[in-house]
Amino acid sequence: MSRTSEYIADGIHEECGVFGAYDFDGGEVASSIYYGLFALQHRGQESAGIAVCDTNGPKGIVKSCKGMGLVNEVFTQESLASLPGDIGVGHVRYSTAGASNLSNTQPLVLNYVKGTLGLAHNGNLVNALKLREELAYTGAIFQTTIDSEVIAYLIARERLKVGNVESAVKNAMGKIKGAYSLIVMSPRKLIGARDPFGFRPLILGKRGNTYFFASETCALDAVDAEYVRDVLPGEVVSITRDGILSDTSLCQKEHARCIFEYIYFARPDSRLDGVSVYQSRIMAGRILAQEHPADADLVVGVPDSGNVAAMGFAQETGIPYGVAFVKNNYVGRTFIKPKQSMRESSVRIKLNALREVVAGKRVVMVDDSIVRGTTSARIVNMLREAGARQVHVRISSPPFLHPCYFGTDVPNEEQLIAHSHGVDEVCKMIGADSLGYLPAGRLHELLGGITEGDCYGYCRACFTGDYPVEPPTEDIRGIM
Amino acid sequence: MSRTSEYIADGIHEECGVFGAYDFDGGEVASSIYYGLFALQHRGQESAGIAVCDTNGPKGIVKSCKGMGLVNEVFTQESLASLPGDIGVGHVRYSTAGASNLSNTQPLVLNYVKGTLGLAHNGNLVNALKLREELAYTGAIFQTTIDSEVIAYLIARERLKVGNVESAVKNAMGKIKGAYSLIVMSPRKLIGARDPFGFRPLILGKRGNTYFFASETCALDAVDAEYVRDVLPGEVVSITRDGILSDTSLCQKEHARCIFEYIYFARPDSRLDGVSVYQSRIMAGRILAQEHPADADLVVGVPDSGNVAAMGFAQETGIPYGVAFVKNNYVGRTFIKPKQSMRESSVRIKLNALREVVAGKRVVMVDDSIVRGTTSARIVNMLREAGARQVHVRISSPPFLHPCYFGTDVPNEEQLIAHSHGVDEVCKMIGADSLGYLPAGRLHELLGGITEGDCYGYCRACFTGDYPVEPPTEDIRGIM
Amino acid sequence: MSRTSEYIADGIHEECGVFGAYDFDGGEVASSIYYGLFALQHRGQESAGIAVCDTNGPKGIVKSCKGMGLVNEVFTQESLASLPGDIGVGHVRYSTAGASNLSNTQPLVLNYVKGTLGLAHNGNLVNALKLREELAYTGAIFQTTIDSEVIAYLIARERLKVGNVESAVKNAMGKIKGAYSLIVMSPRKLIGARDPFGFRPLILGKRGNTYFFASETCALDAVDAEYVRDVLPGEVVSITRDGILSDTSLCQKEHARCIFEYIYFARPDSRLDGVSVYQSRIMAGRILAQEHPADADLVVGVPDSGNVAAMGFAQETGIPYGVAFVKNNYVGRTFIKPKQSMRESSVRIKLNALREVVAGKRVVMVDDSIVRGTTSARIVNMLREAGARQVHVRISSPPFLHPCYFGTDVPNEEQLIAHSHGVDEVCKMIGADSLGYLPAGRLHELLGGITEGDCYGYCRACFTGDYPVEPPTEDIRGIM
Amino acid sequence: MSRTSEYIADGIHEECGVFGAYDFDGGEVASSIYYGLFALQHRGQESAGIAVCDTNGPKGIVKSCKGMGLVNEVFTQESLASLPGDIGVGHVRYSTAGASNLSNTQPLVLNYVKGTLGLAHNGNLVNALKLREELAYTGAIFQTTIDSEVIAYLIARERLKVGNVESAVKNAMGKIKGAYSLIVMSPRKLIGARDPFGFRPLILGKRGNTYFFASETCALDAVDAEYVRDVLPGEVVSITRDGILSDTSLCQKEHARCIFEYIYFARPDSRLDGVSVYQSRIMAGRILAQEHPADADLVVGVPDSGNVAAMGFAQETGIPYGVAFVKNNYVGRTFIKPKQSMRESSVRIKLNALREVVAGKRVVMVDDSIVRGTTSARIVNMLREAGARQVHVRISSPPFLHPCYFGTDVPNEEQLIAHSHGVDEVCKMIGADSLGYLPAGRLHELLGGITEGDCYGYCRACFTGDYPVEPPTEDIRGIM
Repeated sequence: MSRTSEYIADGIHEECGVFGAYDFDGGEVASSIYYGLFALQHRGQESAGIAVCDTNGPKGIVKSCKGMGLVNEVFTQESLASLPGDIGVGHVRYSTAGASNLSNTQPLVLNYVKGTLGLAHNGNLVNALKLREELAYTGAIFQTTIDSEVIAYLIARERLKVGNVESAVKNAMGKIKGAYSLIVMSPRKLIGARDPFGFRPLILGKRGNTYFFASETCALDAVDAEYVRDVLPGEVVSITRDGILSDTSLCQKEHARCIFEYIYFARPDSRLDGVSVYQSRIMAGRILAQEHPADADLVVGVPDSGNVAAMGFAQETGIPYGVAFVKNNYVGRTFIKPKQSMRESSVRIKLNALREVVAGKRVVMVDDSIVRGTTSARIVNMLREAGARQVHVRISSPPFLHPCYFGTDVPNEEQLIAHSHGVDEVCKMIGADSLGYLPAGRLHELLGGITEGDCYGYCRACFTGDYPVEPPTEDIRGIM
Repeated sequence: MSRTSEYIADGIHEECGVFGAYDFDGGEVASSIYYGLFALQHRGQESAGIAVCDTNGPKGIVKSCKGMGLVNEVFTQESLASLPGDIGVGHVRYSTAGASNLSNTQPLVLNYVKGTLGLAHNGNLVNALKLREELAYTGAIFQTTIDSEVIAYLIARERLKVGNVESAVKNAMGKIKGAYSLIVMSPRKLIGARDPFGFRPLILGKRGNTYFFASETCALDAVDAEYVRDVLPGEVVSITRDGILSDTSLCQKEHARCIFEYIYFARPDSRLDGVSVYQSRIMAGRILAQEHPADADLVVGVPDSGNVAAMGFAQETGIPYGVAFVKNNYVGRTFIKPKQSMRESSVRIKLNALREVVAGKRVVMVDDSIVRGTTSARIVNMLREAGARQVHVRISSPPFLHPCYFGTDVPNEEQLIAHSHGVDEVCKMIGADSLGYLPAGRLHELLGGITEGDCYGYCRACFTGDYPVEPPTEDIRGIM
Repeated sequence: MSRTSEYIADGIHEECGVFGAYDFDGGEVASSIYYGLFALQHRGQESAGIAVCDTNGPKGIVKSCKGMGLVNEVFTQESLASLPGDIGVGHVRYSTAGASNLSNTQPLVLNYVKGTLGLAHNGNLVNALKLREELAYTGAIFQTTIDSEVIAYLIARERLKVGNVESAVKNAMGKIKGAYSLIVMSPRKLIGARDPFGFRPLILGKRGNTYFFASETCALDAVDAEYVRDVLPGEVVSITRDGILSDTSLCQKEHARCIFEYIYFARPDSRLDGVSVYQSRIMAGRILAQEHPADADLVVGVPDSGNVAAMGFAQETGIPYGVAFVKNNYVGRTFIKPKQSMRESSVRIKLNALREVVAGKRVVMVDDSIVRGTTSARIVNMLREAGARQVHVRISSPPFLHPCYFGTDVPNEEQLIAHSHGVDEVCKMIGADSLGYLPAGRLHELLGGITEGDCYGYCRACFTGDYPVEPPTEDIRGIM
Repeated sequence: MSRTSEYIADGIHEECGVFGAYDFDGGEVASSIYYGLFALQHRGQESAGIAVCDTNGPKGIVKSCKGMGLVNEVFTQESLASLPGDIGVGHVRYSTAGASNLSNTQPLVLNYVKGTLGLAHNGNLVNALKLREELAYTGAIFQTTIDSEVIAYLIARERLKVGNVESAVKNAMGKIKGAYSLIVMSPRKLIGARDPFGFRPLILGKRGNTYFFASETCALDAVDAEYVRDVLPGEVVSITRDGILSDTSLCQKEHARCIFEYIYFARPDSRLDGVSVYQSRIMAGRILAQEHPADADLVVGVPDSGNVAAMGFAQETGIPYGVAFVKNNYVGRTFIKPKQSMRESSVRIKLNALREVVAGKRVVMVDDSIVRGTTSARIVNMLREAGARQVHVRISSPPFLHPCYFGTDVPNEEQLIAHSHGVDEVCKMIGADSLGYLPAGRLHELLGGITEGDCYGYCRACFTGDYPVEPPTEDIRGIM
């Protein structure tokens, strides 16, 4: 019934999923978007939204439904039925605790000089604050704290100067800096665009006469659509009644695809920029085995994202792969911790070790990353309590040393255990017998053909500090 | 969990209530605003909202809670507790069916070049579409369809030119036309303003060191505040730490206070612009008795708004006043009509006649207005079924002949029974033995001292078509 | 989603409303029951429920929907549609704070030896604890704390001995003592029964081939049904396909109709046992005027129940009747009092005095009763603050001196101001200029033809302590 | 706000989880029960409930919270805080569609001759209808359709004859037939009991001075409790202030532990009756490999329950184990299928195949069972579409041929594909290259030491039709 919001400029680093659809046969797209968002749920569990438009109806009538929670909490049979339209855009959003509120849900829907726009955005701008300030000095007002609102303003203002919305999008892209994969719905066009560095993925798909944009190919699978191609970094793809138009004038040679999409964010059944996420994780496991072999009886993964790399490790070494953990899938967004004092540890609630599997064994435990180290310590301890004789931790990414400004919530240095502690120290802190990280120098092998010299083919700034785009210098909470 | 909205420009004529508070002693104002809105609930039952700010906290952090429904549905103990702040503004909103959605709830909260603003608005602009068009052509984007967003843009743009927010408000007022009573909260100031014609009421009150703005005095009573004075038509009142400042430079001689506030909208225990609503209704009843006497045994009012005028009629004629109807107060916003076919009439659900009171009597039935005539017909019929020998209908307003563009939902001509039918016809259609309206020529008597020649002292355009401000010419749904 | 309940035997004295329907043409009755309950909402706002059965469907399939809250909160279009059936029973329930929970909602639905039963009960048994104990000693288990469960057990056990459900109901009535108006739905019959003293009302109505039972005639009006007759005290009326059967073998000469139904509980547009509630209140006002005249300028009622008596006072004395209070109808069940300290008084929120009406006047204020005296004191004070010169309080019932055990929540002696204070003291405590109660000796005049000697025609035990049925001696929370 | 229920006797075969706790140090147990139920969520997702009692408070005050939905939907911080008590019992429930309603949620809480009882029950009685009939003929009434109510009646009636509640439980057990693991909370005792055949598991655990009963050991892990022992089939264990008492007088030699608990129901990290669920699944895979080897490149499991058996198959054969499916964990209880026609298949929503893993491979796909065959067909097809050259299906249980009457929802013969089709036919119908089931004759190997001759050591009636207890003969919906 009500929404409570703290209105404040909070430069949240977020990870999101976007999905768009346009059915040239006039069929309704809301259910496909629902399924697509559902397949992208792992990219954001905080809020979800769908906006649709009927391209044959009165121009500019956009209907939308947005809400806090999971896709299947936000949408009901009834609310989907209230979203007629053959063109539409959807969004799932994650944001760190405390900054979540209904007014920040996407897609953003707005009227501007030429009609109506719907926008869904995945990524993070680095010059959003500067742009907000400039826009405010020419009379803009802001009702949300999301970057999409800044982008919308720029598109609206560019649209005053140029003849069509896709050009306005392109011109706006000339002003924004950072990570963005964007789906824009105008009353008659669906536009997908990706920043010139290609930080975040965006895929084009097709089913009959219906075209789709999606953050990952797994969402195309969910709607039985076939993969057409990845939108290119810097490209603006317009799906219109006149055909699929591509503007590549902003494309550049240097790319900075987020390597962590492959290591952690994306679903293993997705392919991003032609590279299988599954294969890149198998490769990560193999590299770990080559770089940090272990004399062990068993390789296990920390569910779910460590599993595939663990299999790669097992394949490379011949050490048997095993399943050592049972994960409680019912630990949802709303799981509460009773206030009453209790000894139960919440890690035990989410994960339990299989004594039968690990007892008496020397275990290699593969996980995707270590942030603060506390969770790793608890899991190592759980294995020991279940009888593991040795626990060798292998991490399928290099140590986190720097924050991310491009759409993930890798936190500031002081919260990153590796920033202030060496490998040996971390090993001791998490109670492992040995610890090995993926060498940053071999990250490129995860992506197949890319060679090490191709230094901007992907972004690894959180490991190296080499930011492909200048990070924001001032405190992001500054101006407002 | 979710909100479903139809995004479309819908020039809804609405009636709202506004309330603001500023406690110079630093006490929290949310609970007072809650009580104030509660007393104004009759002015809008669709949605409610409160936004507050802590004038001693970090500048520009506004917290708000808004939702669909009644005040006591939207706010909980918990949500009120999450609204700390010594300055705040609240709003209750009514809008006709179909156009209601969460994104249109007020107060509007936004960031602009100089920080944060909260706005609550009662009224309706007549040049909103034109202003939206102009703003859009300079790059504005619109996320709602409410006039408050237009006003906010104008204030934001004026603020770029002038040194303080109250001047920006005044300058913005120079651009907007129509009906508005406005409360603006900036991080350190609470500003109340009223359009130069004074269509909608706005009152200033005080309790200790806390100052209030409210749509009606009954809301001041609810918070034990004393009445200070009405904000003047055209006046901008700024409550600041430096004192209560008044800018009357936009004040003018011609006023157009909505006469229907007295006849119907306002609570009878309120005083607006110094005139008691109760007294004006008693006067309406007396005038009706003088103009349209009836040979009758009993005078009854249609609850609730017809009761006081009925008492005036009884006082003037000496015919006994009686209570002929029992009203079911539990018919709320969410009362459903089961789809299953049934003979039960929904008027009977809301109202029942007292056979003991009316049986065998010649009854004068006083109501405030007739719009389409169908409800009046049902009530007259109900009296006859309860045994009334005669039913003489007296209406405490003149016939509705023209739509209202100034904040009420008096509909278009074709829906107004009096527009196409004479008094005798209407009398026959509603099944009355006689029918008498309040003569438009005596409306001024409801307001006490105002004389008939003072033609712009109040607005009676819905009866006469003499609009004090040019109504919008184009279809209000035009541009978008 | 969830219900929290405290399971404990809590002999709550409650006031409820019951409604039943049987359509011999096979039409669905849920919507009629919904409307009927809606008209009885004043008898209970805590919970509501409907149970229906299809007499032509598989025997014994009862569908029900019950919930906490008002009728229009509990039922939706969807839930009503899920209640097909041509026979049904409904209930609204009130209980004092703290003892309310979902498992106590009615109708009670259960399976027993001969199939399915639905029960709705208004009243309070005085031997419920004893019966519970006896039943428990023969193996009964109790899942609720409501008397209906005891009655259901007795019916079930009697049904083992006799050939039909109506006889079982009658035999069960031979065992229970106290106040009850009961509607029992078996798969093919709808039975209405009233205790031999007739404490609570129960009416029989008819619309075409549909028959109704209702607590008050106003519920018959709400479904456009005509009044047939009151169920007699002690009568069992069975609506069956073979006709309407009446068993009057438990009827007795001594009756004890609750006089407070007329003074306060029932709606003024109802007739109970042939007496108009409206007329009895007019009469109460007239008697007050005769017994306690006042030299005054104005007679006003405390809304809503004091209004009619005030009119009677005015009619008898010729002193003008006026409306002195505006009541806020939006103060619902869920109105919260913010925890933040505030000076606002909650009486002011619900009621506001009209200065224009009372200023400078000597006012007679008529109310239905005084329980603790605090509310009366606040209202008197409100009149004085609004300028009343004198406030003469007249109460349309005698002083409350004793608790009620027959279905109302008149509390224990120590909470009744009149139990420990004389009239003059109470007058002073509430700040009135004079105070007059209705004399207990004239209560019979409220009921029309009943003469004073007919001492058990009605129950006035809360005023006199002469209980028509022995009240329970042990603490009602005893055994469990 | 409301509950809609169909009241009908519906002998639903259900699978549930139970958990109880008693803290002799007087600490509150609600949070432990919450965590315990959470770990048992896989045993029932339809409803959840907790009832607690303070053994030091007034006797017989039980507080409970029950609701439809998952554990983390039913309980909030607030509702857990409203459940003080050092003794308590909890329940999660699953039932097939259509028969779920709030009144059937457990624990059942009731008053009887000796005070208050709370009951939680996992299993299914085969003579419930007969007992209901007998009870009804001695005056019982039934408000739910769950077996717990029958058991409660029997306990209540036995309690009249014997001196303590544990004896009453034991005597009641003498009358009920079928599957039950039962936790009974009386105001001062917590009693765990298991039917003499031991169909359903029940474990005793301990943490400090707190004792627990749980359906599985994984729930003990979740509260950091240690495993003490399994309650014996036929045993009544009473946890009282005087110690832990055991009554084994109903124990018998013949047992019928549900073999399907090991194959499917239980979590792999649980041990039941001393046997590791994980190990029994590994063994099932090994047996499958021995009985139905396959010339293949890869072994994969259908998540989640097929995974461990797949690993056993891989271990036995040396064929590499792989993960071929990505499961969408967000497909919850409330996932809706939009009504709009669409080509998206819902299997694809829940599960997606990894092309990289299976393309070009001969795949062994291990699943736990085949019921109707449709899901298996879709998954086989999914593997083929992902490029699998061959798909050899191996099922870690024998073919389902007969319904289960002991607490699971294995359906009637006509719905079991294996009942009317041979292995070859089923193989063709699901599109597999080969199909192999676990031989019924080797089921005992899953349980370790039990030998084949020990024919009643476990129940395999759904595979063989040899019911350890006579199944009910009449239609379970008969009498009511």
